Amino acid sequence: MQNFEFYAPARIVFGRDTQKQIGPLLAPRAKKVLLHYGGGSIKKSGLYDAVTASLRDAGVAFAELGGVRPNPRLSLVHEGIALCKREGVDLILAVGGGSVIDSAKAIAMGVYYPGDVWEVYEEGKPVEEALPVATMLTIPAAGSESSGDTVITNEAKQMKLGYGSPALRPVLSIVNPELFFTLPESQLGYGVADMMSHVFERYFTNTTHTDLTDGLCEVTLKTLMKNALLAKADPKNYDAWAELGFAGTVAHNGLVGMGREQDWACHGMEHELSAIYDVAHGAGLAVLTPGWMRYVYKDNIPMFVQFAVNVMGVRGSYRDPEALVLEGIDRLSDFFKKMGLPQTLADLGIGGEQLELMAKKATWVAYGGEECPLGGFKKLRWQDVLNIYRSVR
Amino acid sequence: MQNFEFYAPARIVFGRDTQKQIGPLLAPRAKKVLLHYGGGSIKKSGLYDAVTASLRDAGVAFAELGGVRPNPRLSLVHEGIALCKREGVDLILAVGGGSVIDSAKAIAMGVYYPGDVWEVYEEGKPVEEALPVATMLTIPAAGSESSGDTVITNEAKQMKLGYGSPALRPVLSIVNPELFFTLPESQLGYGVADMMSHVFERYFTNTTHTDLTDGLCEVTLKTLMKNALLAKADPKNYDAWAELGFAGTVAHNGLVGMGREQDWACHGMEHELSAIYDVAHGAGLAVLTPGWMRYVYKDNIPMFVQFAVNVMGVRGSYRDPEALVLEGIDRLSDFFKKMGLPQTLADLGIGGEQLELMAKKATWVAYGGEECPLGGFKKLRWQDVLNIYRSVR
Repeated sequence: MQNFEFYAPARIVFGRDTQKQIGPLLAPRAKKVLLHYGGGSIKKSGLYDAVTASLRDAGVAFAELGGVRPNPRLSLVHEGIALCKREGVDLILAVGGGSVIDSAKAIAMGVYYPGDVWEVYEEGKPVEEALPVATMLTIPAAGSESSGDTVITNEAKQMKLGYGSPALRPVLSIVNPELFFTLPESQLGYGVADMMSHVFERYFTNTTHTDLTDGLCEVTLKTLMKNALLAKADPKNYDAWAELGFAGTVAHNGLVGMGREQDWACHGMEHELSAIYDVAHGAGLAVLTPGWMRYVYKDNIPMFVQFAVNVMGVRGSYRDPEALVLEGIDRLSDFFKKMGLPQTLADLGIGGEQLELMAKKATWVAYGGEECPLGGFKKLRWQDVLNIYRSVR
Repeated sequence: MQNFEFYAPARIVFGRDTQKQIGPLLAPRAKKVLLHYGGGSIKKSGLYDAVTASLRDAGVAFAELGGVRPNPRLSLVHEGIALCKREGVDLILAVGGGSVIDSAKAIAMGVYYPGDVWEVYEEGKPVEEALPVATMLTIPAAGSESSGDTVITNEAKQMKLGYGSPALRPVLSIVNPELFFTLPESQLGYGVADMMSHVFERYFTNTTHTDLTDGLCEVTLKTLMKNALLAKADPKNYDAWAELGFAGTVAHNGLVGMGREQDWACHGMEHELSAIYDVAHGAGLAVLTPGWMRYVYKDNIPMFVQFAVNVMGVRGSYRDPEALVLEGIDRLSDFFKKMGLPQTLADLGIGGEQLELMAKKATWVAYGGEECPLGGFKKLRWQDVLNIYRSVR
């Protein structure tokens, strides 16, 4: 086990009807909030009315900024920063999924950052000050409600970059699984692929003596797979959505990766897909993850046997460990298929033209600097990334 | 799954040499700390010197109060409160195990509480203000480094009572598994029994649809049992102690019990043993827990089959579920035995004289008020508690 620091200060208020608590919960810490949301589904569902009524009743003033799209845009972030400064906002309330929350975090640090906040993403500058962010989750997927991470797309540069800081961890997150009942089926699939990836990126490691976190990862993955199928069969299954919502938070609050060297190559490879093709992050991950597994498993077969046996339930002869591993990966592909997720880049509408460019962007070769290989479990150079893209064409 | 609120804000700094970071970590938030510790083993081990040097180098002044005993006493708490007020302390640093940390929490709230802080324990008065507490853990057991709980013994009244509040959650906890190498073997056993009990009290539930937390509990229990045996065989096994230290924190930061009706009868019954006989908390739990299991399992056999199969690894015929359950409980007893833990009250030096009094104290019948049955999984009246005490004589 490696040394680590665990810090997950978000207060998670979880369960039925919890959205009605938002006003009283924010009142002690905010006079005026920025209500940040997406394309307007919260207006159709009545959630917008419930939230604004609760804020008003609690005497919390608010400005608002809607219009966050999946793969949230830098331009809207700039707009939000200006709005917060103009209106004297002292907390940002993100009502939505990961894109809305990530956009809120970018605004939160942009309010204090002296230059263009994009520099933080591109140059990894340390940020210690940000407005507090609270969230009300409408899509279990990104885990952004408990993480200090944010991913933003610079549409002008066709770059999608992530950044993380403890200063960006939400102070409060409200999770009511009933809000997930009306999600389109595709969002369920994307969300599950994303949440599973947050665990996979931490699970596959060369660090040894990681009993507790191995087990935490395996339990979280099994919970996600079981309950994704239940929620798909019955979109009003409260308990299934509750398991997904809770597991999504646990998957990305840091806990399951503590003391382990982590990977994150699949996330890096996927960001290039959505930066250019604007595909759903979870859809891209569902295509890339099995491809990544087949490309890297030989580097640590015992780790992948553990995955196949403990997560995917494979049984068989340990005298042929590779067969166990490949059966485990096949089962993961089958699960993604059952969830209606794409299997290939072609399914995503991505042809072969830009694969080399994306591989070079993912490893920073495209920007003329030194190559930054992707991944902790196995270092991937740009040719490796290209091989993986080609393997899932 | 029930609605829940999860809040575990302690920053956990975990790993080798982390004790040296204490000064720089506290400097931004404290000018003067109370260094609170136990019987002086930290002076023999050199930890006292390392901590005070780090504080001095970082410009953090300190007062000090040693002498905390297992089952920490109210009288020392009173002394600490007066000292903090006199010295203008703004943070309490507990260097020790659960007793030292629990004592620190009592002092932390006592500084602000207008009356005798014992009233908080006896009357459950809500406390919202307390000095911040930081911890440096020397015994993995109580989980107090991440919980908001404190248990104090009023020696004059022979009462041992617990209290919990989010205001008492430590702001920072340093966990260096190397500090555990020199613990006496008995402390390892007591600690493991206590950490397992923190999970059991949450695991045994009648709440349904708890996939994630069921799994988190099971993984934590298995990690504790496996690594306790490793640390017993080799007290300098860093990785084994690291798993124990991390699992102990996860066992009691609240996570594994979220959304579940919890039990806590074994803790309630044990507190009566240590209030009168001053036995080690973990030793009392090791005696009572299998007895409690045998007394209550018939109320929810499927829950206990899950325990036997998923935690204790029992395999057999599901057509005779009771046999599976009893085999699981026997295996737990065997594990405690292997760890050198007592099996009966007689092993603890406790005779039959006070059993009825303890049963009546545990359920508040002894104090003349209304009976407060113990336990969430199964409500235990004083006669039930007495039956359990007698069953493990």
